[in-house]
Amino acid sequence: MGGGTPTRDEVVVSLERMRDIVSIDEDAGCAVCEAGVVLEELESAVRARGMTVPLDLGAKGKCQMGGCVSTNAGGLRLLRYGSLRGSVLGLEVVLPNGDVLDLVRTLRKDNTGYDLKQLFIGAEGTLGVVTKVAISTPRAPRSVNVALFGLESFAKCVEMLKLARGLLGEILSAYEFFDRESLDLVLAQLSGTRDPLPGKPCEFYVVIETSGSDAKHDTAKLDAFLNVVKSQRIVVDGVVGRDEKHAFALWTLRERISVALKYAGAVYKYDLSLPTARMYNLVVVLRDRLRPMFGSRVKVLGYGHAGDGNLHLNVSCAEYDDAIERAIEPFVYEYTRDERGSVSAEHGLGVMKAEEIHYSKDAKAVELMATMKRALDPFGIMNPYKVLPAAAVGLSKL
Amino acid sequence: MGGGTPTRDEVVVSLERMRDIVSIDEDAGCAVCEAGVVLEELESAVRARGMTVPLDLGAKGKCQMGGCVSTNAGGLRLLRYGSLRGSVLGLEVVLPNGDVLDLVRTLRKDNTGYDLKQLFIGAEGTLGVVTKVAISTPRAPRSVNVALFGLESFAKCVEMLKLARGLLGEILSAYEFFDRESLDLVLAQLSGTRDPLPGKPCEFYVVIETSGSDAKHDTAKLDAFLNVVKSQRIVVDGVVGRDEKHAFALWTLRERISVALKYAGAVYKYDLSLPTARMYNLVVVLRDRLRPMFGSRVKVLGYGHAGDGNLHLNVSCAEYDDAIERAIEPFVYEYTRDERGSVSAEHGLGVMKAEEIHYSKDAKAVELMATMKRALDPFGIMNPYKVLPAAAVGLSKL
Repeated sequence: MGGGTPTRDEVVVSLERMRDIVSIDEDAGCAVCEAGVVLEELESAVRARGMTVPLDLGAKGKCQMGGCVSTNAGGLRLLRYGSLRGSVLGLEVVLPNGDVLDLVRTLRKDNTGYDLKQLFIGAEGTLGVVTKVAISTPRAPRSVNVALFGLESFAKCVEMLKLARGLLGEILSAYEFFDRESLDLVLAQLSGTRDPLPGKPCEFYVVIETSGSDAKHDTAKLDAFLNVVKSQRIVVDGVVGRDEKHAFALWTLRERISVALKYAGAVYKYDLSLPTARMYNLVVVLRDRLRPMFGSRVKVLGYGHAGDGNLHLNVSCAEYDDAIERAIEPFVYEYTRDERGSVSAEHGLGVMKAEEIHYSKDAKAVELMATMKRALDPFGIMNPYKVLPAAAVGLSKL
Repeated sequence: MGGGTPTRDEVVVSLERMRDIVSIDEDAGCAVCEAGVVLEELESAVRARGMTVPLDLGAKGKCQMGGCVSTNAGGLRLLRYGSLRGSVLGLEVVLPNGDVLDLVRTLRKDNTGYDLKQLFIGAEGTLGVVTKVAISTPRAPRSVNVALFGLESFAKCVEMLKLARGLLGEILSAYEFFDRESLDLVLAQLSGTRDPLPGKPCEFYVVIETSGSDAKHDTAKLDAFLNVVKSQRIVVDGVVGRDEKHAFALWTLRERISVALKYAGAVYKYDLSLPTARMYNLVVVLRDRLRPMFGSRVKVLGYGHAGDGNLHLNVSCAEYDDAIERAIEPFVYEYTRDERGSVSAEHGLGVMKAEEIHYSKDAKAVELMATMKRALDPFGIMNPYKVLPAAAVGLSKL
């Protein structure tokens, strides 16, 4: 959303040389690192001690931990480990007045006053610069399984989610979906990919991941689940990752959709929270809306974290075109508002969506945010023009 | 900590008639209720739909959901479900200026601006009055097991915790400990209780709870765990709850210690976060400190949520005595500060500990809290004399 992109006369600060992993504590299950440490580096370091970072996302090879915290990154493990608001145990933050605020603690529980670190999680740098992160690192699962299913309708995806919650229970660690259009794009754009269920084209695909402590139990639970969804004809077909390489190939189909979109040309991206059961309706409605105007020039794709109620809605076309954008916005935002959803589930507001905040937050909430911004950053020097609408903080619009 | 106790000329507001359960959504796994709903009532209502509230504590029969949120209550299920900062999905709050802030949403993910609800979780009513709560309600476990172990030392309790994290993994839902003194007090004060391991007195006891989706798998995991801790002589002995009644009796020994303390006379209570492995040292040190001064007049008890690094340290005596208090405080706080722990893990600061905040938070952090308090409540009308030290918000000390 351009949260890290300067727009006028800002000074850009890079933290990429702050890349020390300060400590890893196996007893307590936590790690402390500087903000410039890349997520994948931290994951490797804690993996070597049998633990894992409770956060994973496509950008893991380059995203820095300070940025993950500042954007309250969601990603692929939220279903299992919850959000960073629970996993982050402590922070060091440089405040707008230059003070270094030391909130680096590795305690699970601390009710001594307001939980200040929450202010900076997801604030996109508008209240201070995160320079150090303490994060809980749960035991790495001993057994991970990946399965991919083809289904006829989104209603079946929702029906299967309920069954997965019941039958896979505590080992369900991801429930991701993508539609036919998304798969077709991946197969067309990315070499080395292939149809996971050849000869059985489906409208929808779901990738399920389980993570547990006992391979035998996990396999038994997954087998029982497979039997139910096949015998009840909830799925057309399904395939379980035979080995790590095969499991990776199945995950790739979901994880690299955003890369395929980039190769395909221009893309309008929306990251929405909607009531899970009705989530895909918006894709259908938008497709019906754009087809008469633009025909096959635009493709509307839907995929995302179905288990978290998070839809990634994408409109792909050869080149950016204001007419297309006007046909999508504010329509998509209004639709989301009417469903009491969120116009930014995990991507934040940055510079691109700051003015759209009112679709998800009412005027009183925005005013309270502006009150906090003024209280912490009275001169408005921290990442200006981001997150809050210009009028709320006394700036002129860009 | 007296967070709800008026001290001078406050107006007391009761929300006990705001007891509507507004909605329960099985598809999304969440519930919305008014602030006066009692935790146990909400638990019963969602249990009827196969779900559970991700919070449980001894006071469940009378504590209200608004109070649970305002105190960021921890309790017995934190190990499994994390803190309320992750489980609470939305709030309605009445602000100091009379505005009703509608943050009632049931979305798992929403990154549209600052997460305002975090301000009110754990603020003990000093920034506003919580009037409505939206909370995630995970599937109720199908299988719950309780086991109690006797151990020779606290070091063994810590060793067993590591094994439990590995072998019980995702089904470990509570890991609670208490010492010999705690058990003796419960047996002496509460009729109907009995020694869980008769003839084998131990220095320490641990209650483990597992919650899972498959009874057979859970039992197999627990059996494997039992074999390891017995064969490696980590425990003196152990007993598994045969049925619900027996399991309840085992839990009671841990859960009713605070009731037994009340019956026994005066009690000085401390709720501390400390590095787990060294947590019990403080009990030993304090016992050694008080014995030469007060002999057998005082008993020092240690119990708590070992899995969360949370020690409940209690000094029990017949009557309150300033000399005893002076021997405990500020010694306990200074010890905790030197361990970089928290002087209030889950109980909050209220009126009793507001002046002790500096043992866990530095001056800059307290000043930032005061900045927030002034920004939201410029006239200082919301629960005055609580949480923040008087000087920080321009009040005279009580």
